[in-house]
Amino acid sequence: MTHEIAVIPGDGIGKEVTPAAVDVLEALEIDFEFVEADAGDSLKEATGEALPQETYDLAASADATLFGAAGETAADVILPLRDAVDSFVNIRPAKAYPGIDAVRPETDLVFLRENTEGVYAGHEDRLTEDVATLTRVVTESASAELGEFACEYVSESDDHDGFTIVHKANVMRETDGVFRDTIKSVADENGVETDEVLMDAFATRVCLEPEQFDVIACPNLAGDVLSDLAAGLVGGLGLLPSANVGSERGLFEPVHGTAPDIAGEGVANPAATIISAAMMLEFLGYDEQAHAVHEAVEATLEEGPRTPDLGGDASTDDVTDAIIERL
Amino acid sequence: MTHEIAVIPGDGIGKEVTPAAVDVLEALEIDFEFVEADAGDSLKEATGEALPQETYDLAASADATLFGAAGETAADVILPLRDAVDSFVNIRPAKAYPGIDAVRPETDLVFLRENTEGVYAGHEDRLTEDVATLTRVVTESASAELGEFACEYVSESDDHDGFTIVHKANVMRETDGVFRDTIKSVADENGVETDEVLMDAFATRVCLEPEQFDVIACPNLAGDVLSDLAAGLVGGLGLLPSANVGSERGLFEPVHGTAPDIAGEGVANPAATIISAAMMLEFLGYDEQAHAVHEAVEATLEEGPRTPDLGGDASTDDVTDAIIERL
Ligand SMILES: CC(C)[C@H](C(=O)O)[C@@H](O)C(=O)O
Ligand SMILES: CC(C)[C@H](C(=O)O)[C@@H](O)C(=O)O
Repeated sequence: MTHEIAVIPGDGIGKEVTPAAVDVLEALEIDFEFVEADAGDSLKEATGEALPQETYDLAASADATLFGAAGETAADVILPLRDAVDSFVNIRPAKAYPGIDAVRPETDLVFLRENTEGVYAGHEDRLTEDVATLTRVVTESASAELGEFACEYVSESDDHDGFTIVHKANVMRETDGVFRDTIKSVADENGVETDEVLMDAFATRVCLEPEQFDVIACPNLAGDVLSDLAAGLVGGLGLLPSANVGSERGLFEPVHGTAPDIAGEGVANPAATIISAAMMLEFLGYDEQAHAVHEAVEATLEEGPRTPDLGGDASTDDVTDAIIERL
Repeated sequence: MTHEIAVIPGDGIGKEVTPAAVDVLEALEIDFEFVEADAGDSLKEATGEALPQETYDLAASADATLFGAAGETAADVILPLRDAVDSFVNIRPAKAYPGIDAVRPETDLVFLRENTEGVYAGHEDRLTEDVATLTRVVTESASAELGEFACEYVSESDDHDGFTIVHKANVMRETDGVFRDTIKSVADENGVETDEVLMDAFATRVCLEPEQFDVIACPNLAGDVLSDLAAGLVGGLGLLPSANVGSERGLFEPVHGTAPDIAGEGVANPAATIISAAMMLEFLGYDEQAHAVHEAVEATLEEGPRTPDLGGDASTDDVTDAIIERL
């Protein structure tokens, strides 16, 4: 069966790391049909639109989408694309790799970020000249869906004993109360262990004892900030992949941005995008190939070649070729 | 002129570190009248109320309040107390001390946290069985007040060149847009330099290059989470003081909680509360004495004695006595 894969490189280094990931996927000789589409700052400059309807439609109909990065228009591109694939969870692993400098080398976390609501639900008003409001939305249904997913996620692998619910229900009592209580009761029904930590306390503790945490379920903005914090602990955004998973489709993207300082030089680190492509392979059921890509990336991170962000002097192509050779 | 100081030890180690800070203040022989009041979990158990009206009224009329910690009832105690002193900014320095183990010893930050609104404004609703909402409130007036304060704060000292506005205005366009734009224009009017960083990017960057940041102005929840993150970078909450400043009064409290694991053992680290007391001295205009307390705490952190959280075996009293001797 052919899988249609939408490929949206976007801006900056997105244009370099996305083709690199496609090269890796092509080397696997799976029956993929790649369809490229455009989005982002440069498109907006040229056409007035950051995300054309046809790009949205492509993501909404393809089996999976690989996305690079967008600049100033990131929110206008990525938030609708998450919606196009009907994604309810954003999976963000943050793991330190052997041989790579990390602030906390013991870090090995997976964030399961609620991907549809919270402050991202986006109802804002200017009530008076002085007062602006935003309606933060939390539903039992979205929380339950995340909870079910978290239970499956930790049950499918022997690596995980349960998960941690991170929230701020001592202040956002009703909304984060719904989030916490719903997920906790889904987990209880499924016989999955959970514990809970307030999001501020989590921020302190994950710096001091990252090894105490494993899988973390959290609201949308908490997931945004805390996974970026974890990126800092493992040495930067350059290595963080992500998977926006829906029930039928998915959108796979590195957590990093467009890196304007190095864009166009051919030295961007393709690892995060290639690991995102491996997450796409898992999502589509190609577990063996996904495993091979993960292993090849890890070996290349450990043994080189490395791009300048990791202290090496290899190009994006050098690293991509090395990964393909190790498949 | 006598200053009336409300002293609210609260729960757990609050009952140990607050008297320690009072001992230090008494050693300075300033004309303070200390009035003690109760709040917190144990009071709630005994009387059904975590924060009695008389404690609130005391904080609302005293010149300054020294608070320890509260347990489960923390939000019911500390949020109304911040309101009682009409505090618009929560000053949270996060600094690594020489000789103390820190994840990032280069960290030396001051968070200026908006202290009245954001998600803490607290309008929550259960719209349907499924849907809960919270109205996040951001006003031009509160943002301007924080902006004015930040300008004064950085201008008063030669240590600061300007400040960084941290926000999430790419998603919360209207609310954090008001926050960012208002503060930026106040700073421009005052000739104070600012830059801005998205709160997720800040979380990554502060781990990787804390020395790039200095004074940070941010919304309420961002300040809560990011200052706790910084606490992780400097080695834990045990050393972080805070000052809730209003135009006439202030509330001074360590950032740490009740530490139930060591409460009652007489080994809690009093440093954060004593530094909070030094911030109170500054607020009341006793700059010289504030300076002396800061120096005495720093010398004691560096040379000992130290409590067990810092690898020593001294008691709270030993450390307090050593600080007093160094005044
Ligand atoms: C670009 C922005 C809207 C986005 C988010 O906040 O989700 C980004 O920070 C991310 O985490 O993918
Ligand atoms: C106890 C809680 C309500 C409080 C807050 O969120 O402000 C605490 O975390 C703090 O930072 O002082």
